[in-house]
Amino acid sequence: MSPMEDDMKLKLDKKDWSEWYNTVVEAAGLSDKRYPIKGMNIWLPYGWKIMMNIDKYIRELMEKTNHEEYSFPLLIRQTEFNKEAEHIKGFNSEVYWVTHGGENKLDIPSLLRPTSETAMYPMFSLWVRNHADLPLKTYQIVNVFRYETKMTRSFIRVREIHFFEAHTVHTDFEDAEHQIVEDLDIMEEIARRLCLPHLKLRRPKWDMFAGADYSVGVDSIMPTGRTLQIGGIHQYKDNFARAYNIMYEDVNGQKKYAHQTTYGMSERLVGTLISVHGDNRGLILPPDVAPYQVVIVPIFRKDNVDAVSEYARSVKEMLDESGLRVNLDDRDLRPGNKYYHWELRGVPIRVEVGPRDMQGHKAVVVPRDTGEKMAVSLDDLVNTIVSEMDQMKERLLGHAREDALSKMAYYPTIEEMPENPEGMVIGAPWCGEDNCGHQMEDRLDMNLLGVPLENYDARDDVDMHRAMMAKFNVDESNLHCAVCGARAKGVAILARTH
Amino acid sequence: MSPMEDDMKLKLDKKDWSEWYNTVVEAAGLSDKRYPIKGMNIWLPYGWKIMMNIDKYIRELMEKTNHEEYSFPLLIRQTEFNKEAEHIKGFNSEVYWVTHGGENKLDIPSLLRPTSETAMYPMFSLWVRNHADLPLKTYQIVNVFRYETKMTRSFIRVREIHFFEAHTVHTDFEDAEHQIVEDLDIMEEIARRLCLPHLKLRRPKWDMFAGADYSVGVDSIMPTGRTLQIGGIHQYKDNFARAYNIMYEDVNGQKKYAHQTTYGMSERLVGTLISVHGDNRGLILPPDVAPYQVVIVPIFRKDNVDAVSEYARSVKEMLDESGLRVNLDDRDLRPGNKYYHWELRGVPIRVEVGPRDMQGHKAVVVPRDTGEKMAVSLDDLVNTIVSEMDQMKERLLGHAREDALSKMAYYPTIEEMPENPEGMVIGAPWCGEDNCGHQMEDRLDMNLLGVPLENYDARDDVDMHRAMMAKFNVDESNLHCAVCGARAKGVAILARTH
Repeated sequence: MSPMEDDMKLKLDKKDWSEWYNTVVEAAGLSDKRYPIKGMNIWLPYGWKIMMNIDKYIRELMEKTNHEEYSFPLLIRQTEFNKEAEHIKGFNSEVYWVTHGGENKLDIPSLLRPTSETAMYPMFSLWVRNHADLPLKTYQIVNVFRYETKMTRSFIRVREIHFFEAHTVHTDFEDAEHQIVEDLDIMEEIARRLCLPHLKLRRPKWDMFAGADYSVGVDSIMPTGRTLQIGGIHQYKDNFARAYNIMYEDVNGQKKYAHQTTYGMSERLVGTLISVHGDNRGLILPPDVAPYQVVIVPIFRKDNVDAVSEYARSVKEMLDESGLRVNLDDRDLRPGNKYYHWELRGVPIRVEVGPRDMQGHKAVVVPRDTGEKMAVSLDDLVNTIVSEMDQMKERLLGHAREDALSKMAYYPTIEEMPENPEGMVIGAPWCGEDNCGHQMEDRLDMNLLGVPLENYDARDDVDMHRAMMAKFNVDESNLHCAVCGARAKGVAILARTH
Repeated sequence: MSPMEDDMKLKLDKKDWSEWYNTVVEAAGLSDKRYPIKGMNIWLPYGWKIMMNIDKYIRELMEKTNHEEYSFPLLIRQTEFNKEAEHIKGFNSEVYWVTHGGENKLDIPSLLRPTSETAMYPMFSLWVRNHADLPLKTYQIVNVFRYETKMTRSFIRVREIHFFEAHTVHTDFEDAEHQIVEDLDIMEEIARRLCLPHLKLRRPKWDMFAGADYSVGVDSIMPTGRTLQIGGIHQYKDNFARAYNIMYEDVNGQKKYAHQTTYGMSERLVGTLISVHGDNRGLILPPDVAPYQVVIVPIFRKDNVDAVSEYARSVKEMLDESGLRVNLDDRDLRPGNKYYHWELRGVPIRVEVGPRDMQGHKAVVVPRDTGEKMAVSLDDLVNTIVSEMDQMKERLLGHAREDALSKMAYYPTIEEMPENPEGMVIGAPWCGEDNCGHQMEDRLDMNLLGVPLENYDARDDVDMHRAMMAKFNVDESNLHCAVCGARAKGVAILARTH
């Protein structure tokens, strides 16, 4: 909070990701974890702005795909929560219970939503009457609550989670399957904005979302070589519709159970983009979600403060008008301290304006990731910044891909697999049988995260499964299970997870 | 949800506000109160969009006045909650208690925030160190929870409340007083957007916010003649700073307690704008917060569907480009049904386009409140709509002022006051003594809501206290208490409240 902070240079070393992450989150003013309840942290303004920019983009994509935004209550009565048996089992040990209102004991205890199926679906059963009501495409952006017993970490494992959840209702399984393809497309769009390569994997049966017919997990590959799940897309079939009586009359007047899907993401998007892009000088924020895309640092001596300040303000005005998010740092500090301050906070573009720039009607542009300085005429400044930000996005995605790929390996047979490999993400052909999957998990001391969906055509630029297959020249037409040698259903991914 | 609804015409009569309100909220798709927990309602997309537009405007005003947005945890431990004695007393009977996480009893029970003083101030005591850290101007937009025992009503009295709260920290009382003036200015700005005349009254001692030094209530005058509090602005002095140890070092190195203020508003803004502006055809939404500012209704016969539809789409494109929020209603329904549908939902401007308009390169513009049709050339369409919306805002505010004023009366002495007047808001000079205030309350069976702040210069256009003083030619320089005849501190307002 005080200007003193700028004089205290931090030692950052991303090789120790855990220490690096905690230090950067605190020093850049993203989150304060000193709140007296473990795992419930305070979003500080700078961190909150990143999240809000992500939310804004999610809302745009939801609108484009005809989802409508709702806001459901936080509390769910035990009565409604208990209707879908698998779902309760999955969440029972990690929900917060509200038992009293004032001094009165509640007739029926309620819980804080850990996710909103059981809040929404009793209402869906009132709203859905006729095939013309379908598809019903809803979403909300709310906080959910999980009584986490593991070690907590800002944005990555917390007890109050900033959450996006889309819930859709369809006439049949096929239509729900189309929704899942749309969700995967949306996921790739978001990943492109955040420059985040990732894996999209159909989870094995033993690792599905509670109540789902099948689940697709979206996993980011972290600097540790472990994966972090950043999204979940679930086919519910009619499992919940049967439990919550969500029925519609079809064109022939027959009553049928609806089919449902969900799609969830959370503040982990912030945790992973910090981790994947940052360096030893601090954050590097993808331009689309950076609170400030540009920081202007005026460079003056005592005898030209006024002139340079005015020039800096005129540059700011010009950039503001172009729609860029700009901050003019006119604090009374040395320029070097300001550079340090904004590099730590990951502002994509620094613009320096000094007396010589002023005379030449110029400014110096410095992208955060390369640190290269370029003198630019004011007439070209907006275009240069926009084009530099585009190039930075490509570089961020490219570096993230390279780094992820360097951590990936492929083994056609279990015998070739290393024992207890640290920091690796491993691909291996798999027949789909539990037994073979578990044998690989045991050998590697890893989780089997799944295989790609057959009916989804992932895009090369962001999908790391595709990238791995290409790197190791895997012939998909002739795959045999790494354990039993039977025909494989696909190349499974195994990894340790955060 | 189904197109059938358009055929069922509702009977709306605003004279019975309670019935009218509940019907409109449901029929216009703002909120669904069938959620199984009383007073916890579902925000439906149309209602939520109104709220989000209001939030967006609040955020703009907060940014303009250098407030920063935070997001604090929902749960507050009993330990922190119990530190300010008056505050606990005020809220103890209406908080929800969380006692268990999973199957574990929590060591320290936590409550769902009813407001966030006790969540924020322990952190403020860590953040505030030095006079250079002040003023600290924070806000958040979150849901708060109150275990309401009275009858609930959508947006007006609910148990989960969509809430805005600004919390500021200052070096001294004077600086905090400036903040309160800024808050009142912001309140007037928002009221202007929502076309809501209102009262801003320093509450009597017996009706202050729990823990405040003094409280200003902002009250809207409802169609019932009762008032509804839509905002609260509080001077805390150092009351909370002492309880939560919020201290700073002043320029001389001396430790001092900080002074604090808060400013709160809620979803009641939606409740009151529905109530104040609506008519017997349904909602009338102020253009600045309407989800759609314009609805386009194409009017075609079977032989010209394609041409008219295309013309309608081109009109939509043009209006979209101008930045207006536009909906093209191309459903297969009769135009009359569509008019009814969108009038009920309060869309400010209807644009009709038929074959004749197409030929004349024209469109028909119909403001929701007047229903007057005007043929406009396409070249003038955007300008006409913008100017009609501006005029509508003036009309909405003007009508709301007239209606409020028609319910206000002024009595210089208690003897002249009617006994048990229904549907009236009454002004009377008051010396400020409890006893005199209570006598008026008893006589009228009303609450004394307070007198305007002396140091705030309210604006004529939105402030109904000013309007009342002018209407009744009250001479402020020579006021004597309506009860005891002593010199009056101002003209107090008495009313029944929602």
